[in-house]
Amino acid sequence: MNDVIETILDHRSIRHFEDRLLTDEQIKTIVSCAQAAATSSFIQAYSIIGVKDKAKKKKLAELVGNQDYVEKNGHFFVFCADLYRHTVIGENEQRDVIPSIESTEKFMVALIDASLAAQNAVLAAESLGLGICYIGGIRNNLEEVKKLLKTPERVIPLFGLAVGYPRQRTGKKPRLPFEHVYHEEEYEQNNEVYVQQLREYDKVISSYYEQRTGGKRKDRWSEQMANMLEKQSRMYMKEFISKNKMNLK
Amino acid sequence: MNDVIETILDHRSIRHFEDRLLTDEQIKTIVSCAQAAATSSFIQAYSIIGVKDKAKKKKLAELVGNQDYVEKNGHFFVFCADLYRHTVIGENEQRDVIPSIESTEKFMVALIDASLAAQNAVLAAESLGLGICYIGGIRNNLEEVKKLLKTPERVIPLFGLAVGYPRQRTGKKPRLPFEHVYHEEEYEQNNEVYVQQLREYDKVISSYYEQRTGGKRKDRWSEQMANMLEKQSRMYMKEFISKNKMNLK
Repeated sequence: MNDVIETILDHRSIRHFEDRLLTDEQIKTIVSCAQAAATSSFIQAYSIIGVKDKAKKKKLAELVGNQDYVEKNGHFFVFCADLYRHTVIGENEQRDVIPSIESTEKFMVALIDASLAAQNAVLAAESLGLGICYIGGIRNNLEEVKKLLKTPERVIPLFGLAVGYPRQRTGKKPRLPFEHVYHEEEYEQNNEVYVQQLREYDKVISSYYEQRTGGKRKDRWSEQMANMLEKQSRMYMKEFISKNKMNLK
Repeated sequence: MNDVIETILDHRSIRHFEDRLLTDEQIKTIVSCAQAAATSSFIQAYSIIGVKDKAKKKKLAELVGNQDYVEKNGHFFVFCADLYRHTVIGENEQRDVIPSIESTEKFMVALIDASLAAQNAVLAAESLGLGICYIGGIRNNLEEVKKLLKTPERVIPLFGLAVGYPRQRTGKKPRLPFEHVYHEEEYEQNNEVYVQQLREYDKVISSYYEQRTGGKRKDRWSEQMANMLEKQSRMYMKEFISKNKMNLK
């Protein structure tokens, strides 16, 4: 075990922060770490928007569905897939890059790039004693988020990241069994084994909640997932992406 | 500067590895670190397939376009977006999760989840003195990769990760200017500033290549990007994803 692995394994989402802002130096370190991540063919297809302005944070907190840690934190980042800069380059270099830029492949590249960068940012922040919470709720209302952040076409805000000094420390939720996530040589072909792993994990999660809530809650993971997935959320995404000229072609 | 930030900033892709395999313990540590990453609504929508078998690695190296570090490394991981397990859960729980699972939103969630996990794996590996190279070339021929790894429907191999003991140490390529990637309050609205940043970065990259190659190469970043993006690559992706029932609806 070394410091890096310790930091990684100690991750938990933090949703209550002290009333203390990050310094510009901290922000610069976090972003520089994000930028150090690998990037597909050196494309660097993402941007990060930092939000300090109180009114803007408040508005964002409303847009994501009244999560007050989006308003109250040390700093708020929004990670965006960004192929706008490559469109500008295409124009400047007078080359037709549009079919590439509008492809599903490049959309994937931008998402992967942005996510690798974000996870570097997270670990940098956590190594500085800060806590973080990813905010997927940014995607609840991307039209409004885009207006607020004034992002051009071909830039898609993907998720937020609230960072700050932790006020509380939550428990770590047990993950899926190692064997269920990690397959050797080929994907698990035995359906019985596969389902059995899920059932055992269901028990783990159920007793995790039972212990944590003093018996009030004991939902299984399968139940949780079924509940979540039965609701259709953010079904406007495809249309939104097309409208922003990342066409998933 | 702490060990975590140092490890993050010291990243470079490694394409030549010693002939020495990772131990099972190392693999377990790396995967456990991957699993510790945040996951959207606890969905854990990814799987990792580890490849040890020499013949299989050789075949993969061919499929990605004869990259011999896909064959010669300490271990090879394939990170996959995985909504198959959630489909199984839907069946077991008798709940209709399919519209969710086939949405563009959940495809994005799976990609982001897998990428956050991968970057944790990368940093864990690097902290152990190992080197890594992401292999997007996996997406050159996903039909064949899927057959080789026997992945079910709703599992999309996203990228490979070659890990091993570094034989060579490459330079670090300078990233886009901080100000060009990190915007405060809103995306850069001044087009002149934006383009000027790109031009200055072009100079940085051009002299980076010039120095590294003793003057043989001095392409600008814009040039590199225009060349890459003018070629249309992996344009079958949308069709492939639909065929695998992650329908981008």
